[in-house]
Amino acid sequence: MPKRSQISRRQFVGSALSAATVSSVPIPNFLLSSWGYSPNTSSLDWKDEGILLVDKSPYAKLHNVPVRAVTISQGFWGARRQTNVDKSIPSMERLLESNGRMNNFLRLVGKSDAAQRGPVYADSDVYKWTEAVAFALQSGDRPELHALADKIIKEVVEVQEPSGYLNTYYVGERAKDRMAPDVQRWGHELYNLGHMIQCAIAFYRATGDRTLLDASIHFVDGYLLPNFGQGGDKKPILSGHPEIELALIELYRTTGDKRHLELAGYILQGDDRIKLPQRGYVYHFSGIPFTSRTHLEGHAVRAMYACCGATDYYLETGDQSYWKTLNLLWDDLVSAQMYVTGGVGARSQGEAFGDSYELPNSTAYGESCAAIGNMMWNWRMLAATGDARYADVVERALYNGINSGMSLDGTLYCYRNPLGFDPSGGDQIRHPWYDTTCCPPNLERTFASLPGYFYSTSKAGLYLHLYDNAQLDWHLEDGTGLKVVQKTNYPWDGAAEITVTPAKPAEFTFYLRIPGWSDGTQVTINGKPVSGATPGQYLALRRRWSPGDLIDVKFGMTPQVIEANPRVVDDYGRVAVQRGPLVYCLEQLDQPEGVPLFDVSLDIRHEPSSKFHEEFHGDLLGGIVVLKHMGAIYEKSASHSALYRPYTADVPKAKQVELRFVPYYAWANRAATPMQVWTPILRS
Amino acid sequence: MPKRSQISRRQFVGSALSAATVSSVPIPNFLLSSWGYSPNTSSLDWKDEGILLVDKSPYAKLHNVPVRAVTISQGFWGARRQTNVDKSIPSMERLLESNGRMNNFLRLVGKSDAAQRGPVYADSDVYKWTEAVAFALQSGDRPELHALADKIIKEVVEVQEPSGYLNTYYVGERAKDRMAPDVQRWGHELYNLGHMIQCAIAFYRATGDRTLLDASIHFVDGYLLPNFGQGGDKKPILSGHPEIELALIELYRTTGDKRHLELAGYILQGDDRIKLPQRGYVYHFSGIPFTSRTHLEGHAVRAMYACCGATDYYLETGDQSYWKTLNLLWDDLVSAQMYVTGGVGARSQGEAFGDSYELPNSTAYGESCAAIGNMMWNWRMLAATGDARYADVVERALYNGINSGMSLDGTLYCYRNPLGFDPSGGDQIRHPWYDTTCCPPNLERTFASLPGYFYSTSKAGLYLHLYDNAQLDWHLEDGTGLKVVQKTNYPWDGAAEITVTPAKPAEFTFYLRIPGWSDGTQVTINGKPVSGATPGQYLALRRRWSPGDLIDVKFGMTPQVIEANPRVVDDYGRVAVQRGPLVYCLEQLDQPEGVPLFDVSLDIRHEPSSKFHEEFHGDLLGGIVVLKHMGAIYEKSASHSALYRPYTADVPKAKQVELRFVPYYAWANRAATPMQVWTPILRS
Repeated sequence: MPKRSQISRRQFVGSALSAATVSSVPIPNFLLSSWGYSPNTSSLDWKDEGILLVDKSPYAKLHNVPVRAVTISQGFWGARRQTNVDKSIPSMERLLESNGRMNNFLRLVGKSDAAQRGPVYADSDVYKWTEAVAFALQSGDRPELHALADKIIKEVVEVQEPSGYLNTYYVGERAKDRMAPDVQRWGHELYNLGHMIQCAIAFYRATGDRTLLDASIHFVDGYLLPNFGQGGDKKPILSGHPEIELALIELYRTTGDKRHLELAGYILQGDDRIKLPQRGYVYHFSGIPFTSRTHLEGHAVRAMYACCGATDYYLETGDQSYWKTLNLLWDDLVSAQMYVTGGVGARSQGEAFGDSYELPNSTAYGESCAAIGNMMWNWRMLAATGDARYADVVERALYNGINSGMSLDGTLYCYRNPLGFDPSGGDQIRHPWYDTTCCPPNLERTFASLPGYFYSTSKAGLYLHLYDNAQLDWHLEDGTGLKVVQKTNYPWDGAAEITVTPAKPAEFTFYLRIPGWSDGTQVTINGKPVSGATPGQYLALRRRWSPGDLIDVKFGMTPQVIEANPRVVDDYGRVAVQRGPLVYCLEQLDQPEGVPLFDVSLDIRHEPSSKFHEEFHGDLLGGIVVLKHMGAIYEKSASHSALYRPYTADVPKAKQVELRFVPYYAWANRAATPMQVWTPILRS
Repeated sequence: MPKRSQISRRQFVGSALSAATVSSVPIPNFLLSSWGYSPNTSSLDWKDEGILLVDKSPYAKLHNVPVRAVTISQGFWGARRQTNVDKSIPSMERLLESNGRMNNFLRLVGKSDAAQRGPVYADSDVYKWTEAVAFALQSGDRPELHALADKIIKEVVEVQEPSGYLNTYYVGERAKDRMAPDVQRWGHELYNLGHMIQCAIAFYRATGDRTLLDASIHFVDGYLLPNFGQGGDKKPILSGHPEIELALIELYRTTGDKRHLELAGYILQGDDRIKLPQRGYVYHFSGIPFTSRTHLEGHAVRAMYACCGATDYYLETGDQSYWKTLNLLWDDLVSAQMYVTGGVGARSQGEAFGDSYELPNSTAYGESCAAIGNMMWNWRMLAATGDARYADVVERALYNGINSGMSLDGTLYCYRNPLGFDPSGGDQIRHPWYDTTCCPPNLERTFASLPGYFYSTSKAGLYLHLYDNAQLDWHLEDGTGLKVVQKTNYPWDGAAEITVTPAKPAEFTFYLRIPGWSDGTQVTINGKPVSGATPGQYLALRRRWSPGDLIDVKFGMTPQVIEANPRVVDDYGRVAVQRGPLVYCLEQLDQPEGVPLFDVSLDIRHEPSSKFHEEFHGDLLGGIVVLKHMGAIYEKSASHSALYRPYTADVPKAKQVELRFVPYYAWANRAATPMQVWTPILRS
């Protein structure tokens, strides 16, 4: 067994004392009184805690490995993560400063004369940014970022009131509005707190520093628990923007305080003392029992975060009504509501899910945060089941709908991620700053936390979810030390060499993910073929593993032509192109001169897959595989023909053109140019 | 020449005096002072004024005939208009009452204790309803409606303040906000005034009663002109919701006061003293020079009303920069922005135009008011040119996108008119009342005014625009009396007998509209064939006409299968069906048991048009021609297949089903059932 330490009540209170000293807040009595802490709940050492601490969660089949246990070296994600920590995170901090996000804290302790700036959720920007730093620090110290995060945390906790309340918006004149029904609905107090908790936990897991964690506990235990919730004279809670639920459950996993779990459960249940119009329950994806939901609807990020919280609740409680609901919602996601990029949220209005199969491309919202929420939710579903279909969604969202959200140079961000684009409206799509800047730091924390998504452990062994050049230094659940080294050119090439080195020869199962998109996969162990690789499943390699054992895997990465369910009107008669985990798109500037993108068709009248020409261009868009395929353009441009005309079965005259596809994630990195993912097929 | 009367200044002021007596408002001095009235402008007798009074407009090629000059008898529009006046108008009045719209006026003169109710544009509901009555009265007296309108007008003018200001929202506490920049943007004061003017003119043309007309003039001359506009210390105007422009120009045509035209021109130009964010100029379709517009954008009703006002301005001034802009916008309308139903406004968000070719069907907004605005605009473009392409749009919008807005029983209304519908979201689509109830009375006034759209006159003769059982009693522009009687079963049958009876034999041109959709049209005069009928043009029948001359016209009404420009992603691979002026749709409840509407395809692999089976059902939906056509359903329902899957060129197995189409305007009159206009074509 790995080294574990019980967090004793004494230790915890001791930490709270030191935090209180830092923040000059008197220690409230409740911190010293008894509580629902269960002595049976143990925790890993902070260093050993992963993105989720589900080691003791009764309904988690898979358990996280720490972010620090996986080192991603040079390669696809290595480059992205280098940019993230070198450019994105530092430049975002300067933008948060210059847009008053830090001053919002400083002004409350007399260290800034600036007025409050930014929306009600401005605090969450600071927390998400600091969480990104916290994850970055788990991959190795960055003294300047570490110092900056320390400073910010110090500035944050200084603002905490003796009650535990901490928010830079509902202060002064607005203090009287705290947790008022309308403010619960729109004011994002608990959303901010949720991000504070997530940030605090990540920073604790990075550094062992409990300053912000204790401040978070103080907010929850001192302000929320005594005054809000079910029963007695407590006031009801509405989760105006779900986020607190998943944060409270991770807090429970960290503190062992069952009241944190119970509060999350209460919030997920909804409190019928707060009445909303029906559309409010839809939009907020809260306020009614989570278990009464039958489909995804309303604000997409809210819905995804609520699903995360509900899955976390299931992982702890095994509540079957939650599990049924989660499965129903997940089926809705993948059968009728998800873009091929893993993005979600069809409608700009309300940043919302649409009706089933409503997946417009040019007007797609596909907010970066919603794709991240989708990945977070599927990560939890994967923990509950070990079913590779959830890992397939994690990968799809990560490589496409999330990855598109940050420019390759790390300084520009997409808020929405459409699958078709016409710049003639003047939209530049990528911007350095949004006044609602939820997406940029969310992308940063996701990329910083990425090593934590590569592997899981179970009683039976190790799961490999994601492929890239990466080294795992961890151990099996029985304590046997284990190193795993991947060498690959993924996602450009489907081959990976995986060296497995247990500390001593040991029998366990190595669960190798065979992606749903793969074809003709070949696996060998030490050169001997292994059968049974099935796309969309883990290949369970049970054997006695010895140091240096080599798994060699080769996924077929034949470019695939994909069609959508015909009920998706916006994709009807069109196809998308995918190679490996990457969805491709056409950008105008890659097509032959004088060929308007919106007039082209893909010529797949014959065997489709054989006709793609694959070329690696090291100097293009950070190094990508370009796909070329024969297409056609009608001699009479559609843009010059009538809007409506009698149908004719005659195929219009067309001439051949070579179409050039690039990975979707890399679009709009050269210019805002027409783009589309779904291309018409040539009529025959 | 018909009997005409100059409105002298004396007469006008005399009328103003009597109005002032009614409303107990002292006569303001300005009404007695000199103004910009041009003695050269003459007017018809009020009885002889049409929907637009463009008889003296220098750039109007066609001139309106009075509503009262055309009697629509039993037939398609006869039935609709009967329902309108018997049921819709009376029931809407009760709803306006019960929703406080009338009390808003009464409370200001101490006759009601009720609080203000309804949105800032609540007054316009009352004006539009009264305008509907005014048009109804032009087709024959309805004593109970007449008395009700008299009473309402009396109640309205009682509220007018000595300054001329009249509005039930910006009173009391809110009076200080009148015409404040933000209120100009959102408060609809000028929008309400525009509808007051339109109502006042229609009521004047119905009854000769100037009460409301004089109150309108008092508002404009007493309050607006002295305080707002260009120059000196006048305050700037922003047209937050265009409507005032077209109303002021019709007022100019009625009063001859050139300042009314100039004020409209000033508003259309925009005043750069009021700064809006760029998206504001887009949304409001105002604030910048109308002539700087290059495409339709922003709020669709606003844009359509602005285009009406701008066309009115062109009709009076001949300003070529307006004419160029209007043509550019019209080309944008018909080549990239209009639904096949004549509806406009793709986006629910902002009730707005989308990008070019953005014409989603299920999420189409297509507000009834926007389709009405489209018809009003094209009516003006038609007046400017005599070009039948504008009449084609009038007919398309009227029979489809407008006509769908009111239930067949006249008591339920569509606010939005989508071209695809799935009721599983719970939307009932038709409702008796909307708190923003712009559409219902707008539909009512449109149907009530319909006789005025059937004919126009020009120097050369008479134009026939619309076909139905109707009798014209009017005269040529040289004063020769003329009766025209149409006998037809249009739109179910393409044959019409048109008897032309001039008071005495006379040479003139009878311009017979040959609809753009028609094929193989045959025209005879007194049994002798006439050649030259060309779809989308007027057939100019120049001859010496004698009493009883008979034009016999037979339009081919072969059902047409229509495809959209391939850039309309939402219609790609799909077709619509049109027969005569009517666009058809599929409703689930007409299809065979167990055939889900969204899984069907239309089988047009062979010669398409020969395969429709046409059946008149007198007992169905008020009497309609049903179209039957062979279709197919895939054996595996799309609803149970994967969202994304590898493309295969194999055509899935399908079985034949008979599809049953009904006219789009009649949809959702039996139940809220799945509906679609654009149906996929079977892959071959």
